[in-house]
Amino acid sequence: MAEIWRRIAGGALTPGDRLPSVRRFATAMGVSPSTVVEAYDRLEAEGVIRARRGSGFYVTGAGLPPRDPPLMALGQADAPRAPDIDPFWVSKQSLDAGPSVLKPGCGWLPDDWMPVAALRKGLRTLARADGALLTEYGSTRGPLALRRLLLGRFAEEGIGATLDQVMLTGSGTQAIDLVCRLLLRPGDAVLVDDPCYFNFHALLRAHSVRVIGVPMTPAGPDLAAFEQVLAEESPRLYITNSALQNPTGATLSPQTAHRVLTLAQARGLTIVEDDIFADFEPAPSPRLAILDGLSRVIRIGSFSKTLSSAIRCGYIAARPEWIEALSDLQIATSFGAVSPVAGELVAGILTGGGYRKHMEEVRHRLTRARLAAAEQLGRLGIVPWLMPRGGFYLWCRLPEGLESAMIAARCRGEGVILAPGNVFSVAQTAGAFLRFNVAQMSDPRVLAALARAMG
Amino acid sequence: MAEIWRRIAGGALTPGDRLPSVRRFATAMGVSPSTVVEAYDRLEAEGVIRARRGSGFYVTGAGLPPRDPPLMALGQADAPRAPDIDPFWVSKQSLDAGPSVLKPGCGWLPDDWMPVAALRKGLRTLARADGALLTEYGSTRGPLALRRLLLGRFAEEGIGATLDQVMLTGSGTQAIDLVCRLLLRPGDAVLVDDPCYFNFHALLRAHSVRVIGVPMTPAGPDLAAFEQVLAEESPRLYITNSALQNPTGATLSPQTAHRVLTLAQARGLTIVEDDIFADFEPAPSPRLAILDGLSRVIRIGSFSKTLSSAIRCGYIAARPEWIEALSDLQIATSFGAVSPVAGELVAGILTGGGYRKHMEEVRHRLTRARLAAAEQLGRLGIVPWLMPRGGFYLWCRLPEGLESAMIAARCRGEGVILAPGNVFSVAQTAGAFLRFNVAQMSDPRVLAALARAMG
Repeated sequence: MAEIWRRIAGGALTPGDRLPSVRRFATAMGVSPSTVVEAYDRLEAEGVIRARRGSGFYVTGAGLPPRDPPLMALGQADAPRAPDIDPFWVSKQSLDAGPSVLKPGCGWLPDDWMPVAALRKGLRTLARADGALLTEYGSTRGPLALRRLLLGRFAEEGIGATLDQVMLTGSGTQAIDLVCRLLLRPGDAVLVDDPCYFNFHALLRAHSVRVIGVPMTPAGPDLAAFEQVLAEESPRLYITNSALQNPTGATLSPQTAHRVLTLAQARGLTIVEDDIFADFEPAPSPRLAILDGLSRVIRIGSFSKTLSSAIRCGYIAARPEWIEALSDLQIATSFGAVSPVAGELVAGILTGGGYRKHMEEVRHRLTRARLAAAEQLGRLGIVPWLMPRGGFYLWCRLPEGLESAMIAARCRGEGVILAPGNVFSVAQTAGAFLRFNVAQMSDPRVLAALARAMG
Repeated sequence: MAEIWRRIAGGALTPGDRLPSVRRFATAMGVSPSTVVEAYDRLEAEGVIRARRGSGFYVTGAGLPPRDPPLMALGQADAPRAPDIDPFWVSKQSLDAGPSVLKPGCGWLPDDWMPVAALRKGLRTLARADGALLTEYGSTRGPLALRRLLLGRFAEEGIGATLDQVMLTGSGTQAIDLVCRLLLRPGDAVLVDDPCYFNFHALLRAHSVRVIGVPMTPAGPDLAAFEQVLAEESPRLYITNSALQNPTGATLSPQTAHRVLTLAQARGLTIVEDDIFADFEPAPSPRLAILDGLSRVIRIGSFSKTLSSAIRCGYIAARPEWIEALSDLQIATSFGAVSPVAGELVAGILTGGGYRKHMEEVRHRLTRARLAAAEQLGRLGIVPWLMPRGGFYLWCRLPEGLESAMIAARCRGEGVILAPGNVFSVAQTAGAFLRFNVAQMSDPRVLAALARAMG
């Protein structure tokens, strides 16, 4: 009972979510099924969950009334969550950690890798901008300068999109959330790669959809599994990174790209391609959005990884009628689009000339850091699943018999935050893996803590 | 059929939404019920809507497959929407209008009323800030400086809240959206004032809830109606502005405040108090959040109206366990909280000393503008429903026999955007009203266009 309460209070279970089956939950908690049946019965008696005939138990939302004793108690309870199953664990630990904590598990570059000088210059330029730009909401789809700039980049890739096919959002995650709000209903099936970016799990949970993982290969999703899931589950959406996939660093092959699109076409599947790592590639690799020409593929992007995570700005490129509907949804749920000030700042830096040079340096520096990290990890018997063509992630297997959740819990005690494999895995089959951020590993305490935790 | 398509494409109907009943829709469209039955049947045959036994027709989301002919046609169709029923009309017209368009219907101050000098200074200060602040995501609940500052303000009002009771969001609207995502399920009843801020309607529609209006009086919601709706509909949430209510400018009386809270307590109702106009009051008026001490009342605020709409930043103050769950939901759906850069900028300006003086000047200037607007409108026979104590809205009744939607459509043709009464009204009973923004009426063309449209 306490565990279900904790999941509801923590947002891991939200109103409308289905509870784990009695058998699955009993196994997970290491208790008998009858204990779970009793707990569910009591929660139902309290109105916190509700049974639907033949389909299990659902969170009602009534679990959060004011001054409800179990919840109040929970607010103070400090029971640690199992780090191997909670997609919020890595996010919260990394975001809220003080500067003394080391974060080889986090998803961003250290600030001395970022174009700080260009940001300072951009802010000084903004300080002299028109008063209307500094104070007004701006247009519903975001600043024109940045949307035009994106269209120019798309054209270089061979996508001939128009202005009514691009809108700006508060972040890449918010962009995907808007797409999910438009296209998904509770209970829909949604495909993700297994492993994939852990926040996709948290996001999709908030939409009460069924998340189905397709095993990842070094060339993209496993096609046999992909085809089978499409036939059996009729998923509505497939969310993926094609280039430098998070966490594996895998790159979609041309053959897999073509086959995925052909299958999607045949089954009426819409694809969200989150292209957030594009600028880390040494040379462009295949993209679903390009092959497809933004018909059934929705392209998502953001500038958080290459420019600044503190300037919140993402985008969606898609068919004009979807952009129209998504833009209305953005007005309804957050009023203005992206901050016009943020949009201008990003546009200014991207056109400033220094950006391409900066990214070239970052790519070289990452190559060196990746090789160094692989070598150091190799000495501990930790081996990359593949050597990525770019980016800052290394997806690594631990030596036989070691469990990454346990290693992560031990390292946390020493002020080192790791990203254990199963936070990325729908099937929970990545317990032997860790995702490393090679740009966050220069401090020798990282490897030292890791060695002790493994010892 | 075309109208339903239009609503789906425009986002007015989203997947999971229930369609209007056959009878209601037939009346609204001025066609026979059998025509509606036939249209619904055809839409169901196309998979766009689906019947649920005994509960009507619902949008499936399948209405938006790639290359679907009806939708494609719609993307190009330019059929004007009825300006008196669409909550997006005023938003989109006002946000996307060029600088030559006059906007007495919009919801913000002109840029020369805003603290532009303070914003410029704040941006210059930011340009010298720490690199980590300029590039990193920041903590999950937003910059500490701004959260502390808000707690200080709350303490002055008599709310003894703690840091774990405040989180920052991307905007006030996004704050309310997060609360709705946490607490509401499709089909729940939600109370709003009638009239109320039109975007509440759009927001709640995105949550597929039943929106119920309680008639507004100059002292707050009509208590008899409020009590009756609580008994009959068991609403989960009541969303309101207590001070300078949008659009009426009404102020909650102490007696109404106490009674609303007592009824809410008895019926387990949670209240969202959107306090966005607080700083426009000449002196503080009663607040539900203060009386209640943030137990069943959730306080929402933002700096869009007084400081800048271009710096996206809002907040939520509530019970710690709700903030914990809302913060997780914000990570899942937009990753970082508010932009740390935006948060620092706001905190800097609020502590800068000049802010209080600036708001004092704005209040004096608004008083003069309000009196001038009331006098000018009076000459046209347009009469305020009440004279607000502050803020920039005047909710006015047109002379007998005139319909505000028609006046708004005529003025739009002359480059003047008005806010017709029924975009604010759930019951569609405000057709004789217009909401004026007194700060946007200095150009004589506003009154001239209005006079011609009425002529």
